[in-house]
Amino acid sequence: MTAHLKGSYPADEPACSIERSLQILGERWTFLILREIFRGRHKFAEIRDALGIAPNLLSARLKTLIGAGVLRTLTYREPGSRQRESYHLTEAGADLQVVLGALQQWGDVHRARSAGPSALRRARSTGEPVRVAFVDSAGQEVAGADVHLDIRP
Amino acid sequence: MTAHLKGSYPADEPACSIERSLQILGERWTFLILREIFRGRHKFAEIRDALGIAPNLLSARLKTLIGAGVLRTLTYREPGSRQRESYHLTEAGADLQVVLGALQQWGDVHRARSAGPSALRRARSTGEPVRVAFVDSAGQEVAGADVHLDIRP
Repeated sequence: MTAHLKGSYPADEPACSIERSLQILGERWTFLILREIFRGRHKFAEIRDALGIAPNLLSARLKTLIGAGVLRTLTYREPGSRQRESYHLTEAGADLQVVLGALQQWGDVHRARSAGPSALRRARSTGEPVRVAFVDSAGQEVAGADVHLDIRP
Repeated sequence: MTAHLKGSYPADEPACSIERSLQILGERWTFLILREIFRGRHKFAEIRDALGIAPNLLSARLKTLIGAGVLRTLTYREPGSRQRESYHLTEAGADLQVVLGALQQWGDVHRARSAGPSALRRARSTGEPVRVAFVDSAGQEVAGADVHLDIRP
């Protein structure tokens, strides 16, 4: 059973999709790197400086995320500098928005800080705050207490 | 800046609630332990055997989750055995359902396995599948592309 090796998908294949997700995401820096990219920081130096992460660790995590199809690179060149790569969300990466939103919402409520939330999620179209919740196929909220995890045999 | 020490809340207080959440949850085993408890495994030996986790590591993670107010303990005694503790979700722990749901959903789509999802989320009341999404104050889904992260100064 090699389910606990990180980034070794698809050769090993744990049955639970939480576990498969955590093969890429089950590490604190990974979520924080994604947070920075969602915030619009795409350059290595920007992400490194925002997080205070060691460059070798940042390189390794970016490589894992690229290998997993969550990030893709573009090249850019600033005047007087060599060509560099910038890091962007793929469609799979963009779909992590709701995972980060759920984490953020939980922290806002259950790990509240005295100064209040540092970020709010709003609908661009209406300016109204949004929450992360379970919804049915019609897009209507389903109460958490009504949600059941149906484990397949 | 001590924001990167795990479980040291509330003395250190990173501004971002994602980061505060990850102080407790930013580790693969933590999510997997919570998954088992959501599935109804409450005894130390049950969780240990389900995950194949080293007992000292499981003890440490459970202690962190209890200290963070995510789990609480009850005592039980089986015939012929000493009194033991079982592990249960607090209200804050139960609110992680949507975080785990979001992780699971992402894995179902972007880390799909050949045999299909191992678990489905359904509404008990209707039997219909549910998804994790952003909703407005009326509980109506808001498209991810319409959601904006409004960072406070």
